[in-house]
Amino acid sequence: MKKPFIFITNDDGVNAKGLAHLIEAARPHGRILVIAPETSQSGMSHAITIASPLFLRSVRKEPDLEIYACTGTPVDCVKMAFDHLLKGKKVDLVVSGINHGTNSAISVLYSGTMGAAIEGSFYGVPSIGFSLLDFLPDADFEAATIHASQMIGQILEKPIELPLCLNVNIPIGRPEEIKGVRVCRQSKGYWKEEFYCRKDPRGRDYYWLTGNFQNDEPDAPDTDEWALKHGYISVVPIQVDMTDYRQIDPLKQRLGHRE
Amino acid sequence: MKKPFIFITNDDGVNAKGLAHLIEAARPHGRILVIAPETSQSGMSHAITIASPLFLRSVRKEPDLEIYACTGTPVDCVKMAFDHLLKGKKVDLVVSGINHGTNSAISVLYSGTMGAAIEGSFYGVPSIGFSLLDFLPDADFEAATIHASQMIGQILEKPIELPLCLNVNIPIGRPEEIKGVRVCRQSKGYWKEEFYCRKDPRGRDYYWLTGNFQNDEPDAPDTDEWALKHGYISVVPIQVDMTDYRQIDPLKQRLGHRE
Repeated sequence: MKKPFIFITNDDGVNAKGLAHLIEAARPHGRILVIAPETSQSGMSHAITIASPLFLRSVRKEPDLEIYACTGTPVDCVKMAFDHLLKGKKVDLVVSGINHGTNSAISVLYSGTMGAAIEGSFYGVPSIGFSLLDFLPDADFEAATIHASQMIGQILEKPIELPLCLNVNIPIGRPEEIKGVRVCRQSKGYWKEEFYCRKDPRGRDYYWLTGNFQNDEPDAPDTDEWALKHGYISVVPIQVDMTDYRQIDPLKQRLGHRE
Repeated sequence: MKKPFIFITNDDGVNAKGLAHLIEAARPHGRILVIAPETSQSGMSHAITIASPLFLRSVRKEPDLEIYACTGTPVDCVKMAFDHLLKGKKVDLVVSGINHGTNSAISVLYSGTMGAAIEGSFYGVPSIGFSLLDFLPDADFEAATIHASQMIGQILEKPIELPLCLNVNIPIGRPEEIKGVRVCRQSKGYWKEEFYCRKDPRGRDYYWLTGNFQNDEPDAPDTDEWALKHGYISVVPIQVDMTDYRQIDPLKQRLGHRE
C-alpha cells in the first residue's frame, strides 16, 4: 500500500523551529511536501497575494521529503501546492504549524496557521493546524511533537467525514504534564489592544500593536480556553459558514427584504 | 441631539473611489472619522501587523469629517481607531468599503473589507461592509452609494441586537436596475485557482494568482450568490463562532477526549 501523502505549511516561515518539529511528527506517517513562507507571516489570517507575483524556491529534496519556500502568505502556500505543484495528485492530509504562540478562541480569525489549515480543507482534504502556547523562537516543542504525531495517525487511520479542519492548541509543559485531549468549542472573547507609541529616529510617531485576550466565559468547561487553562490539549473543529442565522429574520423586517 | 458618530475604513486604500462614495453615503447621517490604509490591502482578510510599527498620517480635517491614512491593514485601521484615536469615545456605526469587487460567499474569509467590518463588531458597534461587484478602479458607484446611504440610515434608526455585522454586496447596474434587498445566508462554494506562470526579466519563474468562484448551490434562493445573480443586493449577517458543532461527537471518539 502506498504511504499517505501529507502537505505541510506554517506561518512562522520555512526556518521556524515549529515547522521542523511538525515535519518530525508527520514523517513516520507518510511522504511529505512542505511549502512554507520565506518570511514570518504571523497574524496574516486568510490573506492572499493578489497584486504581486509569487516566487518558489527549492530548499531540500530527499526521499519522501521535499521542502520549498514561497514568497507569499500561508494561504498562498496552500494554493501553490494544490493548484500548481500537486495539481491533480491525491493528498491525504494537510497540517500547518507548529505555530509559535496560541491560536485558540477568536485568534483562529487572525492566525496564518489556521488560515492555511482552513484553506487546505477547501480542497477536500482533512486539515489540522497545530499551535503551541509559547511564542518564543526556541520554545520546547517536545510534548507538542509527540501529540501532533499521535493525532496525525488518528486522523489518517480511517476515513472521516469531510470537510474536516481542526484547530489544535497545546499548552506549555513537558510531555508528562499534558493531561490529554479535549474536543471543544471556540471560546467567546476578544483581543483588547493597546498601542505602544514611540518616536522614530526622525521624530515621527509610530504605533506598535500589543494586546491581551479577554475571555468572556472563563468558567465554560466545553471551551478551548478552559481546556488549555486546565492543562489539556484543545481541539476545535472549524467550519466556514459565517452566517449569523439568528439575525436573518429581524433584518428582513428592518431592511425591507424582497421575497 | 448629538449626530451619530460613524467610523469608516476600506481595503482598497485611502485614495480609492469606493471610499469617497462611502463617505458621501454616510455624511448625511453623522460625524465621520476615516482611517484607511495608505495602499491597497485587497485580499488581506483579518490580517494584523505584529512584526513592525504603524504610522498614521492626517489627510484632511473639516467640520464633522476627519480622514487619516495608516500604513497597516484594514483591521489595523479599526484597532487604530478604537484603541488609539477614539479611545473611550462612543461610536455608533462602523462601515467599510465600498469595495471594488465582490465579497460574497466564501470571499468573506479573504476580504480585507469584511475583516475590518468584523473587527468593528468586536467593539460592540453595529458594523457593515459594502462591496460592489465591479473591481474596476473607475466603477460606477451610483446605485451602491444610494443603497449604502439608505442602509446606514436603517441601521442607525433605532437600536439593534448586537453583535451585528453585515456583509452587503451590490450588483453592477444603474440605480433603477437594482431589484431591492435580500437578507441571505452565505453560499457554499470555493475559489478554484490557477496560477499564471511566466519568467521575470532575470529568467526566474513567477506565479500570479487568479481564480474563479465555484458555486456549490447555484439554485438556492436563500443564498447571497442567488440574490446577486438575480439583480438583488445581498445582505448576510456575519458571526464569528467557527466551531463545527456536528464534528464534536465523532471527534471525541476518534481522539480519545478526556472528560
